[in-house]
Amino acid sequence: VIESQLSADAVELGPYAHYMQKEMYEQPGAIAATLEMVSNASAVKPELFGVDAAQVLPGIQNILILACGTSYHAGAVARYWLESIAGVPTQVEIASEYRYRKSVLAPHTLVITISQSGETADTLAALEHAKHMGVEHALSICNVPESALIRASNLKFLTRAGPEIGVASTKAFTTQLAALFTFTLVMAKLRGQLAVDQEKTLLAQLRHLPSAMQNILALEPHIKQLAAHFAEKRHALFLGRGVHYPIAMEGALKLKEISYIHAEAYAAGELKHGPLALVDADMPVVAVAPKDTLIEKLKSNLQEVRARGGELYIFADRDSQIESSEGVHVIKLLDHAGHLSPILHVLPLQLLSYHVALVKGTDVDKPRNLAKSVTVE
Amino acid sequence: VIESQLSADAVELGPYAHYMQKEMYEQPGAIAATLEMVSNASAVKPELFGVDAAQVLPGIQNILILACGTSYHAGAVARYWLESIAGVPTQVEIASEYRYRKSVLAPHTLVITISQSGETADTLAALEHAKHMGVEHALSICNVPESALIRASNLKFLTRAGPEIGVASTKAFTTQLAALFTFTLVMAKLRGQLAVDQEKTLLAQLRHLPSAMQNILALEPHIKQLAAHFAEKRHALFLGRGVHYPIAMEGALKLKEISYIHAEAYAAGELKHGPLALVDADMPVVAVAPKDTLIEKLKSNLQEVRARGGELYIFADRDSQIESSEGVHVIKLLDHAGHLSPILHVLPLQLLSYHVALVKGTDVDKPRNLAKSVTVE
Repeated sequence: VIESQLSADAVELGPYAHYMQKEMYEQPGAIAATLEMVSNASAVKPELFGVDAAQVLPGIQNILILACGTSYHAGAVARYWLESIAGVPTQVEIASEYRYRKSVLAPHTLVITISQSGETADTLAALEHAKHMGVEHALSICNVPESALIRASNLKFLTRAGPEIGVASTKAFTTQLAALFTFTLVMAKLRGQLAVDQEKTLLAQLRHLPSAMQNILALEPHIKQLAAHFAEKRHALFLGRGVHYPIAMEGALKLKEISYIHAEAYAAGELKHGPLALVDADMPVVAVAPKDTLIEKLKSNLQEVRARGGELYIFADRDSQIESSEGVHVIKLLDHAGHLSPILHVLPLQLLSYHVALVKGTDVDKPRNLAKSVTVE
Repeated sequence: VIESQLSADAVELGPYAHYMQKEMYEQPGAIAATLEMVSNASAVKPELFGVDAAQVLPGIQNILILACGTSYHAGAVARYWLESIAGVPTQVEIASEYRYRKSVLAPHTLVITISQSGETADTLAALEHAKHMGVEHALSICNVPESALIRASNLKFLTRAGPEIGVASTKAFTTQLAALFTFTLVMAKLRGQLAVDQEKTLLAQLRHLPSAMQNILALEPHIKQLAAHFAEKRHALFLGRGVHYPIAMEGALKLKEISYIHAEAYAAGELKHGPLALVDADMPVVAVAPKDTLIEKLKSNLQEVRARGGELYIFADRDSQIESSEGVHVIKLLDHAGHLSPILHVLPLQLLSYHVALVKGTDVDKPRNLAKSVTVE
């Protein structure tokens, strides 16, 4: 039995200025609560995903992830994990697109739906469409136990983020990622892709996640200083590569949602195929660049961005061989997190969007035009 | 033997102000040349894609399309065609992402690479990566016979667009689409998904394509009038759904490349999940909306876009039940084109970007920061 997370604490602001700020700071605790049954065990078990999971999951050969908005970005991260760690062919598709197109179902497909509320209209309809196409097994990852998606799925994982009041999703996103990473480990183990020592290492990294997140949230004063640079801008480009490309997408979406700055994410390799034309002094470029891989690739673009007067904001790792210079702002995260790096790298982007919105004076928790759960088409 | 298309005509501007304008107007002829061997036949044949195609293609069970920039958008359109018409599971991936990630190869996969020049560095490297993963068969769709991609592929299709000088690709894109549609018909026929009368109908539509394109190019004066509305804007949103979502992406890329307006495309269903917060009087919204399906879905968004002062530009069909009104500009294309609709609907978006760039006075054929072929990483 998983108890409802609703309590007086959960809906009061306490010392925080906004629900979004409170919810960002709740993330270490929300991850710890979500992973409680994972972290305390010495090994991952299929049963974490429902009573039928041990019977169902060994037969799964393909995965199709359906979601919208921020939850879609969680699915896009999971695709990289599921293919590279568990070796399961994985597709991720925007629910509103999938429900209306004539597609081909791969054999033995598990559909994974992701939604904070579990009531997102397009995601529900996409799941129904997949069932009509012949899908037999569905796993739903939601934050609300009684939700429609949970009821419509034979497998489930409840994130324990507690109520999320801010329209811009933060703790729901990171707990979704924690759930999806755990699922990746389960699938990898079932498929013989996870050695015992590797499982131990990854479980230890999961246990360390809440304290690693605390370290990053402590960067807030530094990120607050950067926010002033963005408040007068109308645009931004966010670059990422591989598993951090969806994190760049999420960072851009956060900035769009609450600061109304037109931020757009690109896979870094696509920069030369068009968006570089946009770069000038009014277009700051944010790069999610852990482990130096992206920085090496970016160096030629970096010259060109600088030559056009564009400011660079690089979220790197502790040991990254790059330092701040004129127009190049490097923010180093304290921890390496290996495969879990996307869960850490999204935090400074959440903080950045929050502080930009504060400078601009927007309604952080209730941005214009948006609803918390999109329960209509 | 396919002769090189280079001739004196091909590199002279003639009556046109820019190569881009010339190349847009060359599209009906380029499509006719590209489809010469298709349109004149009463049936499609695998041999159109190389001497080995008849032997290779019947064994293909999955398709993976790898490309960059505009060519990636052609691949994204083809994915919808290949799944809905031929029933072949198809993935499309940005070449610079695919080459660096650990993915899972589906059995009996054909890799399709798309590149105007056939020399795009990331696409070449992605093809090599796929071969290392075990891919045995590769089809390359290029505009240059002697190119590296063509040499590296056992199957090939040469578009006959002639030299494309403008950095912003136009006729290369539409001829790629014509090639990919033809390929879809070949695969559909091999898999028993194409009835004889359906093949005849679709071949007739292909033959009609050049004249349908002429009709749309004749809308230029009307689109030129709209361009003035965009020239003072810094942003735009482009919306599409299904097979027209990649066309919205291509329209946004064109506007970015040559007018330096920050245009971003969204699958229309995602609007409520974030980008709607951006919409105000400074953010025009362009909708690629044939056959009314999108317009019906858009109507609630439309109210909200209008309420925020956003102007709507809707590229619809002849019979679409929507008329222009205050702040809502409807441009009706003269023809229905069924499955070929994306090839027609991209034309007004090319014309729009061209005329916006003219008003802004940018260097249309050589936009800042960009190269015609990206032969470095």
